[in-house]
Amino acid sequence: SRSINLAVIPGDGIGQEVVAQGLKVLSAVLPQDVKLETKDYDFGAKRYHATGETLTDADLEALKQHDAILLGAIGDPSVPSGVLERGFLLKLRFAFDHHVNLRPSKLLPGVATPLAGEPRIDFVVVREGTEGPYTGNGGTIRKGTEHEVATEVSVNTAFGVERVVRDAFARAQARPRKKLALIHKNNVLTFAGHLWTNIFNKVAEEYPEVTTEYMHVDAATIYLVTQPERFDVIVTDNLFGDIITDLAAAVSGGIGVAASGNINPSGEFPSMFEPVHGSAPDIAGQGKADPSATVLSVALLLRHLGYESEAARIEEAVSADLAERVGKPARSTDEIGDALAVRVAG
Amino acid sequence: SRSINLAVIPGDGIGQEVVAQGLKVLSAVLPQDVKLETKDYDFGAKRYHATGETLTDADLEALKQHDAILLGAIGDPSVPSGVLERGFLLKLRFAFDHHVNLRPSKLLPGVATPLAGEPRIDFVVVREGTEGPYTGNGGTIRKGTEHEVATEVSVNTAFGVERVVRDAFARAQARPRKKLALIHKNNVLTFAGHLWTNIFNKVAEEYPEVTTEYMHVDAATIYLVTQPERFDVIVTDNLFGDIITDLAAAVSGGIGVAASGNINPSGEFPSMFEPVHGSAPDIAGQGKADPSATVLSVALLLRHLGYESEAARIEEAVSADLAERVGKPARSTDEIGDALAVRVAG
Ligand SMILES: CC(C)[C@H](C(=O)O)[C@@H](O)C(=O)O
Ligand SMILES: CC(C)[C@H](C(=O)O)[C@@H](O)C(=O)O
Repeated sequence: SRSINLAVIPGDGIGQEVVAQGLKVLSAVLPQDVKLETKDYDFGAKRYHATGETLTDADLEALKQHDAILLGAIGDPSVPSGVLERGFLLKLRFAFDHHVNLRPSKLLPGVATPLAGEPRIDFVVVREGTEGPYTGNGGTIRKGTEHEVATEVSVNTAFGVERVVRDAFARAQARPRKKLALIHKNNVLTFAGHLWTNIFNKVAEEYPEVTTEYMHVDAATIYLVTQPERFDVIVTDNLFGDIITDLAAAVSGGIGVAASGNINPSGEFPSMFEPVHGSAPDIAGQGKADPSATVLSVALLLRHLGYESEAARIEEAVSADLAERVGKPARSTDEIGDALAVRVAG
Repeated sequence: SRSINLAVIPGDGIGQEVVAQGLKVLSAVLPQDVKLETKDYDFGAKRYHATGETLTDADLEALKQHDAILLGAIGDPSVPSGVLERGFLLKLRFAFDHHVNLRPSKLLPGVATPLAGEPRIDFVVVREGTEGPYTGNGGTIRKGTEHEVATEVSVNTAFGVERVVRDAFARAQARPRKKLALIHKNNVLTFAGHLWTNIFNKVAEEYPEVTTEYMHVDAATIYLVTQPERFDVIVTDNLFGDIITDLAAAVSGGIGVAASGNINPSGEFPSMFEPVHGSAPDIAGQGKADPSATVLSVALLLRHLGYESEAARIEEAVSADLAERVGKPARSTDEIGDALAVRVAG
């Protein structure tokens, strides 16, 4: 019999509320014969304040035993900026070698977009997750003085770039439109830019059916608001990926519906799935958060574990639910979760 | 009697066409007693192909003699990516210490925006121009092998950050809404991020009337499409500024109307004014390019040199011209330039 052994990290702010709905829908969609085991982990601001810890070696050992990780949100204004981001979120992505940060953007029927007209948006960003300016390389000298110098080093390796570029080509090849765009800034960041561009062009030769294009990150932001239908698959660096996926989420229905997977494709370490949004402390505990992004992250999780039809059922349920919202009064986090659970079970 | 001694760099692609209109409008707006002298410089792809040079020490010496520089666009597909950008554009910005890269965004009446509704957009981005990931620091080892490592180093100094932050506060203080947003990614780029944030907070104490906020660059892209009216003045790093000003241009009428100034506030070196758009080789020589961005850059140039009423007249002319375009057949680059020249003279 099959089983899923899931690590659950509700985290801070609205994390708890949205993760509860994710689990509700997960239980409802799984066939009877699949045994779901979950274990909660208390990472986040509370634990940091109580113990000073963000993520210990023992924590990593424990998390490693799971098939996958579902995360709500981490972050709170009471913790200095960077502490939980670097000490937990990025530490986990790096420790578990989550080098494929997968972020689909799809504007579903009936969903509001800030863009005029009726743009068709359906693309996926493959963001590199373990290199670039996110490595924590750099430092500060003469801190706090008028002679302070602070550096940030973007580290890019052929190994790291090639594996994520290959992943993106394989995804593009598997999609009907078979298009792949590399987004970088190779006219200014010439060292990293040439590495990315050369590897992209080299791998492209193995995928003659995939139509490729290169675009500077600044130009990409223009296309994302003027011609979002242009995109099918995008591959990009860690920082550019961070920036354009928030913009992509904004134009395709908002971060309330933007899902993501931090994937270790080899399966050596568990992959982690989380909504793109943060902990939104301003609305925490009020039942106002939209759990759709978390529920869609559960779909990515199921697809990653091989439950394709269950993943598709969740995506259809969210799509149908969003389409039915139009003109109706707002529902609570819990009500949306219940409605989705009913849909996927039905 | 007054005089303006202008260096003109038409450059590549549509550069020639749009600069011609900029000069036409400049001549038309200047009072009789102001003597306008211009000297053309042939920088760009042609010169690079002919001589291998992009910008020599002698060139810099010559340019230094001018009161200001008007640039069309530099860049051509025949030149490898990075050569003209690093060898000319960035070399000039760095050599002349253009640390305030000023990019206003204003959605003028009648101008189309990709955003739904009728957003009110009127803000200015103060982008740092001489530091950050643009310094060219970094390198490559084992180039072209599977063990290649490429780095890019973002360099940030208290000196460089403080002067641009001060410039932005002064601009915010002088505007009716008196709002200033710092955009960075201080939760991930903690070394540079803390430097920026600390200096921003320190200078803020001297400007009690200015309302400040901090925003991560990823979140900023969301606000730029969902709540652009939120912004008044933005100060940010060189790379983040590059990215968000293209997005800002896209939502406020497109890069056809986005002007910029590369400013050396002390006047030690001449400042340079240029449209945000590139050389657009696909439409070069066809009279299709909109010269408005260049003409608006001339307005920034005049304001910088102290010709405030002339600058305002140009801005009003462009605004009126854009409002009158609605529903009319497209005009050529030249026709738009003529119309603007007539308006500013009238
Ligand atoms: C919270 C932060 C560390 C994170 C990132 O920058 O990757 C977030 O913005 C995201 O996109 O997942
Ligand atoms: C062409 C390039 C070097 C330049 C930049 O990145 O600054 C351009 O994008 C700009 O915004 O002026």
